[in-house]
Amino acid sequence: MATDTEVPNWQTRTKQYREEAAAKIPKEWRLDSRFTTDLGPTSERNVLDIPAQCGLLTAEELHITEDFDAVALLDKLARGELTSLAVTIAFSKRAAIAQQLTCCLTETFFGQGLERAKYCDAYRAEHKKPIGPLHGLPISIKDSFDVKGIASTIGFVSFLDHGPKNEESTLVTILLDLGAVLYVKTNVPQSLMTGDSENNVFLRVLNPNKLCLGAGGSSGGEGALVRMKGSPLGVGTDIAGSIRIPAYVNGTFGLRPTCHRVPDGGQTGPGRPGNFGISAVAGPLTRSLRDIEAFMSAVLNYDCWSLDSGIIAAPWRPSPPAAKTNNSNLTIGYLTEDARLPLHPTVLRTLKTATTTLSKAGHSVIDLTPQLPPNTINKALLSAFTNFAMDPTNAVSKQVTDSGEPFIASVASASLPELKEFSPDLEDAWRLSVEREEYKALFQQLFVKNKLDVLMLPVHATTAVEHDFYGLPMYTVLGNLVDHPAITLPYLKADKGLDAEYIRDIKYTPEYKPDRIEGAPCGIQLLGRPMKDEELVRHAQMVADGLGIKSF
Amino acid sequence: MATDTEVPNWQTRTKQYREEAAAKIPKEWRLDSRFTTDLGPTSERNVLDIPAQCGLLTAEELHITEDFDAVALLDKLARGELTSLAVTIAFSKRAAIAQQLTCCLTETFFGQGLERAKYCDAYRAEHKKPIGPLHGLPISIKDSFDVKGIASTIGFVSFLDHGPKNEESTLVTILLDLGAVLYVKTNVPQSLMTGDSENNVFLRVLNPNKLCLGAGGSSGGEGALVRMKGSPLGVGTDIAGSIRIPAYVNGTFGLRPTCHRVPDGGQTGPGRPGNFGISAVAGPLTRSLRDIEAFMSAVLNYDCWSLDSGIIAAPWRPSPPAAKTNNSNLTIGYLTEDARLPLHPTVLRTLKTATTTLSKAGHSVIDLTPQLPPNTINKALLSAFTNFAMDPTNAVSKQVTDSGEPFIASVASASLPELKEFSPDLEDAWRLSVEREEYKALFQQLFVKNKLDVLMLPVHATTAVEHDFYGLPMYTVLGNLVDHPAITLPYLKADKGLDAEYIRDIKYTPEYKPDRIEGAPCGIQLLGRPMKDEELVRHAQMVADGLGIKSF
Repeated sequence: MATDTEVPNWQTRTKQYREEAAAKIPKEWRLDSRFTTDLGPTSERNVLDIPAQCGLLTAEELHITEDFDAVALLDKLARGELTSLAVTIAFSKRAAIAQQLTCCLTETFFGQGLERAKYCDAYRAEHKKPIGPLHGLPISIKDSFDVKGIASTIGFVSFLDHGPKNEESTLVTILLDLGAVLYVKTNVPQSLMTGDSENNVFLRVLNPNKLCLGAGGSSGGEGALVRMKGSPLGVGTDIAGSIRIPAYVNGTFGLRPTCHRVPDGGQTGPGRPGNFGISAVAGPLTRSLRDIEAFMSAVLNYDCWSLDSGIIAAPWRPSPPAAKTNNSNLTIGYLTEDARLPLHPTVLRTLKTATTTLSKAGHSVIDLTPQLPPNTINKALLSAFTNFAMDPTNAVSKQVTDSGEPFIASVASASLPELKEFSPDLEDAWRLSVEREEYKALFQQLFVKNKLDVLMLPVHATTAVEHDFYGLPMYTVLGNLVDHPAITLPYLKADKGLDAEYIRDIKYTPEYKPDRIEGAPCGIQLLGRPMKDEELVRHAQMVADGLGIKSF
Repeated sequence: MATDTEVPNWQTRTKQYREEAAAKIPKEWRLDSRFTTDLGPTSERNVLDIPAQCGLLTAEELHITEDFDAVALLDKLARGELTSLAVTIAFSKRAAIAQQLTCCLTETFFGQGLERAKYCDAYRAEHKKPIGPLHGLPISIKDSFDVKGIASTIGFVSFLDHGPKNEESTLVTILLDLGAVLYVKTNVPQSLMTGDSENNVFLRVLNPNKLCLGAGGSSGGEGALVRMKGSPLGVGTDIAGSIRIPAYVNGTFGLRPTCHRVPDGGQTGPGRPGNFGISAVAGPLTRSLRDIEAFMSAVLNYDCWSLDSGIIAAPWRPSPPAAKTNNSNLTIGYLTEDARLPLHPTVLRTLKTATTTLSKAGHSVIDLTPQLPPNTINKALLSAFTNFAMDPTNAVSKQVTDSGEPFIASVASASLPELKEFSPDLEDAWRLSVEREEYKALFQQLFVKNKLDVLMLPVHATTAVEHDFYGLPMYTVLGNLVDHPAITLPYLKADKGLDAEYIRDIKYTPEYKPDRIEGAPCGIQLLGRPMKDEELVRHAQMVADGLGIKSF
């Protein structure tokens, strides 16, 4: 610890903090050096199988962590076929392994997690029933969620001074009331506003599918951890794609719910308090679509408003009937690309394969690009990013400069040149509020006129790419601007053989590097109607069925 | 009409417009001069019985307009026991009479109403079923709602140039789709931001209970018309009390729903487009509480988002069970007054009578004043009014000055001295967004800690008072700031004998004039939890039952 007379510089402090964090991982959970060679942000290693190979997990622990989605685990926990203690130990060990390979964690509190698991087991034994619908399930949460007694540094060196939190986020209270076990918090980018989860305190999250690729952001640690099966279900937040991007680049399912449905109060944020534009929203990263439904229905059927006055108190509705009563066909509109960020060959192939396959499966698939004014997606990006730039005090930057730490590389690539000289004033706030309503109306018309069940989009112009090259989240921030719920589904992978015929003679941003991204997960994004998250989950399941997308 | 060379001044234009409006009332619906003497804004006449006395309505028309609430009428219309034509003629005649007595209307389109009624009857005859849940029912709407072919002047002389509307408000489309008949629009104050419905185009709405008293605002015409039984159900909007105030001072039921539940898109507004603070919300003024439920359930079970991208697409939930499962007792918190606007004797007696009576009826009634920081209601008023003052271009004032018309007297008394020098900037927008969340959290805590079913408040410090003295809507704008749904119930009346013992030795604003207000309706306001409009209506019914409040 620093004394009054001897203040360590940011490097010394963060190094010490990381060493303390690493020391919290029990020795018996540490990987043998055989498994930690050739790691790091330039390595092309896929580390997904290391938990099974490393010998640290028992057969039972591998079974628990690999063979069930959250719904299946919850069923076994509720029936008493698995104890929360066994499940929590298994996931704690696997999370510790994931951390050593991908740097996906910030705070670990395995001890509290195991105590909590014991409490859950004792409760069940005494009351002959589960605590609630999330009984005994370990759930990982993004570092921005406050847990009593645990720090929320969100990667700012200046926040190291804040110490452990005395209060908890409203969603944390709710998850605990529903029976969940908390055990780790996950890594994020400095500022929470880039698609590369790097910061000077906890360093950089690596993509477990290929360590040299980005793990997405801002919920990048969640994406890597859930994909590593170090958590059965993770909670992130999304203001421009921060749930969907990590879900996509790591290969999990992810939902950005309609704004204000899931409680998000009491978090540690990067900016100043207050908001009159686009809000971040909390949501799950999962191994299956039914896990998304399980999370949403558990949380939204809790009396959330009693804890969080910022939410829209609309309960999760019972699973609605299929869109068309007499058959199982959906009307699926799709948008391909905006000229600013043309789709990489893998993404173009994925989208084309999806539309073709869904069409063959009997769904009505409509190309909506001709119905939108030119460059709509790029213009929406500018409007959304102008919203993000409305703080004249630039509080986020100040959190960085306060400590003397440098900005991370990707902050620059995730900002818009158009806004370099932007100096916000009250007229901008008026203008933006009008623009938002215009974009909402535009996409409402797209849904209504075409009787859309879902709108399919790429998640990004690229798959996961080399670190610091993710760039502008153009295809995700659109959902935040118009506030439609959006799900990402993992679908296909980069395959240079198959992708070759989709290469066009255009400039790709960033450069298309087929060898480097080979094997990277790809996916699609589905937008539903606002407040119809229930229908979106159901329709996404029908799309997943049509594309043969399975839980993992 | 004005020519290029000869532009009439605002007085000439408005006089001509009023004469044209008056000419639209058929001669056979015009009151004999016996009934139009001693009218006007200084008269103490109660005109509620003139429709029954004047001889213009048949016995059947009196029966239709006097003996049913909207739910009862809808039942008869759906069964074919009444034709929409008969009902529409009856209410059109009675609305015309109300207009001649209270100046409650702006545009009348009786001819279109009757054609529409015939269509409804023909539809029912052909299809053997009603068009929808509002089949054949005449509904009056505030002048701000656009109807195709009809002007939306909202009392601005400068808007006389706009001519008939080519589009209609989303709620208008929905009401028509649900089967309703539109026939009149109702009068408002210049700016829509005062509690005195006066403007230079349509002049001043008078309170039918006593013409020398204000009819409230901004939905003042609705309040007077519904109380006159010239409409079975009216639709207003409320940004600071504009539904609840007219409901209260005229003696009807009124609901300000949770914001964005009822579609309010496509209206003609007084200000500039855009919003990042408190929004106006549309809602009903009715003769019974069940009429509120009928309106809300019909509208919210329509697919409103398909027409209005600005709404929260949360359907009206089935009537929830009573708050406490094992008995019918409510937990009712109440607030009395803020020192800035002490309650007039009638209002104090009404509130005390209500709390005593509800307590005796077995409800748990809690004085919450000690739980709030001092002057909370006044501070909330300032915060809300600062939100209303956030347009640096002051577009509302410009609509007035554009035509050369003068400001109405009550605009001054409805503005805050604290904001006289206020010049809004972006930092104010940030600050206000934080303040709003703080007030929301404060009232959430009040509900949660006390396990409140409803929060009871006065609607205003006074009953209806002489014109231009309504003043600041302190006790209603609170609900808009924190966005809780709020219902007003008509309860008791000014009675100088009974009120005398509630006179305190304090300065009343405005002056307490017992003789002048004698007989003026009083009432109470009930706030529910946000998005729990369904529960609020049910709890309000239990309060009404406890207080013996009946439909009228």
